Amino acid sequence: MRFSIGQIAAMVGPCEIRGEFSGDIVAIAPIDSAKEGDISFLANGKYCKFVEKSHASAIILPPTYLGHPPSGSVYLVVDDPSLAINALCEEIGMELGETANPSIDPTSSIAATASIHPTSSVGPFCAIGHGVTVGERCSIGSHCSIGRNCAIGNDVILHPHVTLYGHCTIGNGCIIHSGAVIGCDGYGYASGPEGHKKLAHVGRVRLGDCVEIGANCAIDRARFAETTIGDGSKLDNLIQIGHNVSVGRNCLLVAQCGIAGSTKVGDGVVIAGQAGLAGHIDIGSGTMVAAQCGVPSDLPAKSTVRGTPAMNIGEANRFYVLRKRMPELFRRVDRLEKRLGEESS
Amino acid sequence: MRFSIGQIAAMVGPCEIRGEFSGDIVAIAPIDSAKEGDISFLANGKYCKFVEKSHASAIILPPTYLGHPPSGSVYLVVDDPSLAINALCEEIGMELGETANPSIDPTSSIAATASIHPTSSVGPFCAIGHGVTVGERCSIGSHCSIGRNCAIGNDVILHPHVTLYGHCTIGNGCIIHSGAVIGCDGYGYASGPEGHKKLAHVGRVRLGDCVEIGANCAIDRARFAETTIGDGSKLDNLIQIGHNVSVGRNCLLVAQCGIAGSTKVGDGVVIAGQAGLAGHIDIGSGTMVAAQCGVPSDLPAKSTVRGTPAMNIGEANRFYVLRKRMPELFRRVDRLEKRLGEESS
Amino acid sequence: MRFSIGQIAAMVGPCEIRGEFSGDIVAIAPIDSAKEGDISFLANGKYCKFVEKSHASAIILPPTYLGHPPSGSVYLVVDDPSLAINALCEEIGMELGETANPSIDPTSSIAATASIHPTSSVGPFCAIGHGVTVGERCSIGSHCSIGRNCAIGNDVILHPHVTLYGHCTIGNGCIIHSGAVIGCDGYGYASGPEGHKKLAHVGRVRLGDCVEIGANCAIDRARFAETTIGDGSKLDNLIQIGHNVSVGRNCLLVAQCGIAGSTKVGDGVVIAGQAGLAGHIDIGSGTMVAAQCGVPSDLPAKSTVRGTPAMNIGEANRFYVLRKRMPELFRRVDRLEKRLGEESS
Repeated sequence: MRFSIGQIAAMVGPCEIRGEFSGDIVAIAPIDSAKEGDISFLANGKYCKFVEKSHASAIILPPTYLGHPPSGSVYLVVDDPSLAINALCEEIGMELGETANPSIDPTSSIAATASIHPTSSVGPFCAIGHGVTVGERCSIGSHCSIGRNCAIGNDVILHPHVTLYGHCTIGNGCIIHSGAVIGCDGYGYASGPEGHKKLAHVGRVRLGDCVEIGANCAIDRARFAETTIGDGSKLDNLIQIGHNVSVGRNCLLVAQCGIAGSTKVGDGVVIAGQAGLAGHIDIGSGTMVAAQCGVPSDLPAKSTVRGTPAMNIGEANRFYVLRKRMPELFRRVDRLEKRLGEESS
Repeated sequence: MRFSIGQIAAMVGPCEIRGEFSGDIVAIAPIDSAKEGDISFLANGKYCKFVEKSHASAIILPPTYLGHPPSGSVYLVVDDPSLAINALCEEIGMELGETANPSIDPTSSIAATASIHPTSSVGPFCAIGHGVTVGERCSIGSHCSIGRNCAIGNDVILHPHVTLYGHCTIGNGCIIHSGAVIGCDGYGYASGPEGHKKLAHVGRVRLGDCVEIGANCAIDRARFAETTIGDGSKLDNLIQIGHNVSVGRNCLLVAQCGIAGSTKVGDGVVIAGQAGLAGHIDIGSGTMVAAQCGVPSDLPAKSTVRGTPAMNIGEANRFYVLRKRMPELFRRVDRLEKRLGEESS
Repeated sequence: MRFSIGQIAAMVGPCEIRGEFSGDIVAIAPIDSAKEGDISFLANGKYCKFVEKSHASAIILPPTYLGHPPSGSVYLVVDDPSLAINALCEEIGMELGETANPSIDPTSSIAATASIHPTSSVGPFCAIGHGVTVGERCSIGSHCSIGRNCAIGNDVILHPHVTLYGHCTIGNGCIIHSGAVIGCDGYGYASGPEGHKKLAHVGRVRLGDCVEIGANCAIDRARFAETTIGDGSKLDNLIQIGHNVSVGRNCLLVAQCGIAGSTKVGDGVVIAGQAGLAGHIDIGSGTMVAAQCGVPSDLPAKSTVRGTPAMNIGEANRFYVLRKRMPELFRRVDRLEKRLGEESS
C-alpha cells in the first residue's frame, strides 16, 4: 500500500486533521509498534497511553482525544476510529482479493443435476452432489464438498475445505471458513446393555442470511426437522453446535464455545469463548454468557452469567473476590472458637 | 415424506392407537412447534407440558401418558417413543441416502498396492496410499486422505475430508465424520535450554469395531505402540485424544472434551462436554465425568465427578450451593467478631 | 522391527547393560503391558512400580534405578531414557517414512506464477495459488490449499488437508498437521442496531522457524499487520489463536487452549490444555498457565496461575483445599452463633 494523507482522509470520510505529514503511508500497524510511514488508530482506551509516544506517521483518533501530534506526524480525528481504519482495510482488501472472474474450475466434480449460477465461481477439486443449487455471485473455494440437495443462496463465500453434508440450506450473504463441517450427524444413541445403538439423523441444518461460520466449526444436522442459525449471527472458530439447536438472530458466539442438543438461544445473545450450554435449555434474548461459563439450565432474557455452573454476574463477581479471602475466614473462625473455648471440629 | 397413520403404526411396531387422523403425515417436528400434518413424540419428561397443546396430528407417547388426543389427531402409545421415532427416521433415511452402487470415482488417486474390496465405494478426489486395505461394503467420501498401510475393516463409513495418517487400523462398522484427523503426531518434545526437540512418533492409532468419531476430532498416534479406542465407543465432535491414550469399550465422549497423553479410560465411561483429563492417569470403568470438569488424577470405577479440579459429585454439589452463601458467611463472622469485641483481621 | 540388544545399545548411545537377552527385540511397548520380545523404558517416576514386574525383554532405565533384571532380560541404563527410546523411534521412523523422491503430483493444481523448489514434493489434489513460493526439501501432503502469495521456507512439512489463506508466511522447519487452518479472518465486527458489520481483515499470519501446528488448529489472520507465532513454539491440536495475537519463542500451547485477539504472549510460556486467555492482554515470558485456567488480565513474567478467573498458583491451591471444607465452616459458624445466642441470618 502507498497512500498520501489526503487519499486516506478521503477514504475515512469526514475528519479533522491535526499536524502535517507529507510522506506516504505504507502500512497499518498497532499503535505500540508502529514506525515512520505507518498509520495506526485508537479504538480501545487501554492503548491510549501509547498515542503520545507512538512513532506512527498518522494516527486515527476519537473526538475525545484532545492532544496534538509531534511535528512531522498527523492525527486524523473521526467519530469512529475503528470504522475509519476499516474503510482503509477494505480499500486494501479490494487490491488483495482474487479477481472475480466467475468460472468453474475444470478439475471439480459436479453432478449433472447440480445448478450453479453463471455469476458464481467454483475452485479446484470441489465435489458437488446431485440436486445442489448455488445462487448468484457465490465463491466456492478449493476442496469444498457439497452434499446432495444442498441449497446455497446468493453472495455466499465458502472458503477452501468446507464440508456440507446433504440437504443443508445456506442463506444469502453467508461466509463459511475452511474446515467447517455442517450437517454431520448429531450425537444420539439409544443406550442399552449391549451398547449404544446409533439413532438415525434425517433432519438438516439451515443457516439464515448473513451468517458467518468460523474455521473448523462443527454444526450437527437435526435428528429430524432443523438445526438453525438465525440471520446475522456470527460464529467464531472451533465451535460445536449440537443437533436440533436453534440460535436466534444477530448472536455472537466466540471461539471454542459449544451448545448441546435441542437448546434454544434467543436473539442478540453473546456467548464468550470456551463457554458451554447444556442441552434442552432455553436462553433468553440479549443474554451474555461469560468466557468458560457453563450454563446448566434456562436463562431469562437479558441475563448476564459467569462461572461453572453459571451464576448471576454479581453473585459470581462477589464469589471470585471472597474465595481469595477463604484462608482469612478460616483463621477468623479459628480465633473465635479459641475465644469461646470451643474446639474446632 | 408422506405416510398414513397405518403405515406409521407398521413402522414403529406394537402400539396402542388413541384417536383418529385420516390425513397424511408429512414431517417430523418437535412437540412445541409441530403443526397439522406433523408427527411428534415425547421422550424427555421436560416436554410433557407441550403434549396437550401441540398442533401435531400424531404424537408418539410412552405408556405412562394417559391422556386422550383432541379430535382430529392421534396418539400412538409405545414402549419407547425415542426408538419408535427412530424407526420412522430410518425409513426416511433410506430414501434420502445415496444409492449404494459401489464404485471408485475415477478422479481418485489410489496406489497400485492398495486393495479395495469391490463392494466398497470411493468418492472423488481421495488419496489412498501404498498398502492400504479397505474391506467390504465401505463408503469413503470425497477428499479422504488415507496414509500408507492403513487397514480399514468392513462396513466402515468415512465421510468427506477424513484424514488418516499412515499405519492406522479402523475396525468393522466404524463411522468417521468429516474433518476428523486420525494418527497425527503426539505432542511430545524433549525440552532443553535450546528449545523443544520433537520426539519421533512411530506408533499408530487403532479403532475397535463400531466406533464413531465426530467431525473435526483429532486423535494422536502413539509415540510407540498404539493409541486405542475400544469397541462401541462413540466420540462427539471436536474431541482431542492424546498419544498413547487407551479408551475402553462403549464409552461416550461428548463434544470438545480432551484426554491428555497416556491416560487409560475404562469401559462404559461417560465424559461430558468440554471436560478434560490429565495425562498418565487411570479412569475406572463406569465413571461419569461432568461437563467442563477437569480430572487431574486417577478415579476408581463408578466415580461421578464434577468441577475443576474434579470433586466427588456430592462434594461438588454442596460446594456449588455454599459458594453463593459466602457473602452471608462473611457477614455472620463479622457480626460474631463484633459481639466478642474482636477486630477483624 | 527386529533388533538385537547390541544393535539397540548402538542406537541409544552410551549405556550400562545389566543382565542378558539373546533374542530379538520386535516392538516398543509401555512398561505395564510389555511382553517378551518388547523393549520398554522408564521416564516418568509414576511407572517405577511396574519395572520389577514387567515382562519386557529389555528396559531402558535412568542411572537412579539400581535394581537388576530377572534372568533372561536386560536393563539398559542411560542418562535420559526418553531420548534413548526416541533414538530407537527415529530409527524405526526412517523405515516407516515415505520415500523422499521429490515430485509434484500431476493431479495438483498449481498456478503458473507459483515457484516450488525442485527438491520439494507436492502430493495429490493440492491447490497452490498465484505467487506462492515453496522452499527447499518441503513436503506438501495431499489436498493442501495454499492461497496466493504465501511464502513457505525450507524443510517445511504440510500434512494432508492443511489450508493456508493468502499472504501467510511459514518459516523454515515448520510442521503443520492436517486440518489446520491458517489465515482465516479474525472475529471482528462493528456492532450496531442493525446487527454486526464485518470488519475487513487485510493482515496476515507469520510463523517463525521450527513452529509446529497441531491438527485442526485455527489461526486467524490479523485485521492489519500480523498474527505471529515465534520461533520454536509448538501448538498441540484444536487450538484457537485470534487475530493480531503474538506468541513468543519456544512457547508450548497444549490442546484445545485458546488465545483471544491482540493478546501478546512472551517467550517460553506454557499454556496447558483447554486454558483460555482474554484478548488485549500481556502475558510475561516464562509464565505457566494451568489446564482449563481462564486468564482475564495481564500477567508478569514467570507467573504461575490456575483457576477461572486465574489466581496465583498458591492462592488457587489453598482455595481448592478450603472449598471442600466449606460445609464444615458453615457448621462451625452455626455453632458459634448458637453459643452466643445469635440468630443465623
